[in-house]
Amino acid sequence: MKNWKTLSKEILLKGDKFLTVENHTIELPDGRIIRNWPWVITPDFVNVVAVTDDERFVCFRQTKYAIEGTSLAPVGGYIDPGESPVAAAQRELSEETGYTASRWIELGSFPVDANRGCGTGHYFLAIGARKTTDPVQDDLEEQELQLLTRQDLEAATERGAFRILPWATAVLLALRYIEKHGFA
Amino acid sequence: MKNWKTLSKEILLKGDKFLTVENHTIELPDGRIIRNWPWVITPDFVNVVAVTDDERFVCFRQTKYAIEGTSLAPVGGYIDPGESPVAAAQRELSEETGYTASRWIELGSFPVDANRGCGTGHYFLAIGARKTTDPVQDDLEEQELQLLTRQDLEAATERGAFRILPWATAVLLALRYIEKHGFA
Repeated sequence: MKNWKTLSKEILLKGDKFLTVENHTIELPDGRIIRNWPWVITPDFVNVVAVTDDERFVCFRQTKYAIEGTSLAPVGGYIDPGESPVAAAQRELSEETGYTASRWIELGSFPVDANRGCGTGHYFLAIGARKTTDPVQDDLEEQELQLLTRQDLEAATERGAFRILPWATAVLLALRYIEKHGFA
Repeated sequence: MKNWKTLSKEILLKGDKFLTVENHTIELPDGRIIRNWPWVITPDFVNVVAVTDDERFVCFRQTKYAIEGTSLAPVGGYIDPGESPVAAAQRELSEETGYTASRWIELGSFPVDANRGCGTGHYFLAIGARKTTDPVQDDLEEQELQLLTRQDLEAATERGAFRILPWATAVLLALRYIEKHGFA
């Protein structure tokens, strides 16, 4: 199968660093041309499921604009310009929780939207997490650190308590990795 | 914890039915006001992991604009205005594959982006899928139906062959459901 081709692009909406929307003209694999294909550029991001040596999972309960009420959440945030995904993951874990981890497992990288883009998320499991410093409190949202047992984490997953798509995915990927490989 | 409040909104970019961008003014739980918060409205969508009575998973290999090369994909598509998620799931399964299923399990619903919105995806497992009609070929992408064994599906998941976030999530949710509950 042939790839889709971008024939031209123009900026429809130039926002701040968080959002740009482009208008693309596209050639489909079968040769058809589509004009006015919106393409959404948002920063790439990381999500980190961090687990301590005594098998506690470092999570937050927090509010976010897209939901009513609260959600459980793994560590996460946007990748800075020029930063590698794993460096962003390590920075976010440290900034948000004050924890550092001894082993970093890449769980996968996935574009968010097949048609519009909307950035790529990179997912990590951080093993051997321990508190080594104080967190930096600079995020907009209220958040409360929770150390969940594996049983808690699995029960939360079953009831959809990680309510945002990349957060649910991060936990599903981490649980699947641990079921296959343990913490080795 | 208190919710974030929308104080006002204006349209920044009025696209077609696939994309509208709004500019919101927001009050944070701690009372701070944020102006110029972009909010992205895209259609809600469904993804369906369908499995036949002889445990074959109904998937596609296909191209999409957001990726180079091909990806495995479950059935999926946008929800029509006024349509329920399960009705959209049943319609997409029929239109894309010509299959119908005897049991529909809701695997969860998740907003795509905690900050921007970007629509909500609804995930389903369709059990007892069988071909009852011809698919309707109206999608833009080339796609090739593949009937995967559970072993194939698990191996594809391990290697990240479902390359788009909601597609990977749909398969992770379905595999987790089947591991817990079987096909009962």
